Amino acid sequence: MILEIDFNSDEALYMQLRNQIVIGIASSQLSEGDCLPSVRQMADQIGINMHTVNKAYTMLRQEGYVKLDRRRGAVIDVDCNKESARRKLAEDLSVILAGAMCKGFSRDDIHELIDYIYDYYEGGAADDGTSAPETGRDS
Amino acid sequence: MILEIDFNSDEALYMQLRNQIVIGIASSQLSEGDCLPSVRQMADQIGINMHTVNKAYTMLRQEGYVKLDRRRGAVIDVDCNKESARRKLAEDLSVILAGAMCKGFSRDDIHELIDYIYDYYEGGAADDGTSAPETGRDS
Repeated sequence: MILEIDFNSDEALYMQLRNQIVIGIASSQLSEGDCLPSVRQMADQIGINMHTVNKAYTMLRQEGYVKLDRRRGAVIDVDCNKESARRKLAEDLSVILAGAMCKGFSRDDIHELIDYIYDYYEGGAADDGTSAPETGRDS
Repeated sequence: MILEIDFNSDEALYMQLRNQIVIGIASSQLSEGDCLPSVRQMADQIGINMHTVNKAYTMLRQEGYVKLDRRRGAVIDVDCNKESARRKLAEDLSVILAGAMCKGFSRDDIHELIDYIYDYYEGGAADDGTSAPETGRDS
C-alpha cells in the first residue's frame, strides 16, 4: 500500500496518515491482522517525523482501527462497537451535511455521492488504493 | 440563536463555533444577511477568547459562509460555488464513509442516516437550533 502525504495541504500530517490508513482498510488494501510498519519505518518511508506517525497510530488505536501489540506493533483490528461508532458517524455527518445544505446540495445529491463513494471503495479502489475517490463531474 | 461550547470536548473550540454557525444556517436559525456578533461580543457571550472567535470567523469566510464587512462585521453570505463546494464535500464524505465501512455500516445505513439528518434540519431543528441531531436509536 502506497501512502502519499501532501505537504502543501491544510490538513495536519497525522490526520492525512490516519485517513489514508482508514481508507486503506475500507478499500481492502489493508486487512484484519495486517501489521503496519513500525513508527520509525513509517516515518522514514513517507518522510515525516516519528512523533507525527505516533500521533496517527494513537488516534487509530483510540478510534478502534488498530491494536498496539508489544511484539508486532500496530496491527489492524477493527472494533465494531456499533453504538459508539454510530454516534461518532452521526456527529460527523451532521456537521458535513449542514455545510452541504448551506451550499445548496439536495438530499438526492448526497445520496448519489454516497453511492458513488461506496461503489468506489467496494470496487477495490484505484491502483494505489489510498486516495479518496475523484468526484469532480465530467459530464 | 444560543451557542453552546463544550469545554470538555476533544474538538477545538474554534471548530465547535464554526460548526454551530454552519448548523445554524442549515437549520434556518441564521439567514442570509444576518450579522454575527462582533468578535468581542461573541467572545464575551460564550466565554472564549477573541483569538479563538477570530479564527472561527476567518475559517467561515474562507469557506464561503460569511463576508467580513468593515461596518457590519461578519455577515452571513453563502457562496454557492458548487464546484469547489462539491470537491470539499466529496473529500470529507470519502474519509467519513471509509470509517463507516470499516465499522460495518452498509450503504443503506448511511442513506437512512442522511435522510434522518436532512429531516432534522429541514424541520427547523430543535429549540436551540445549534445542536447536531440526536441519532442514537431508541428502537
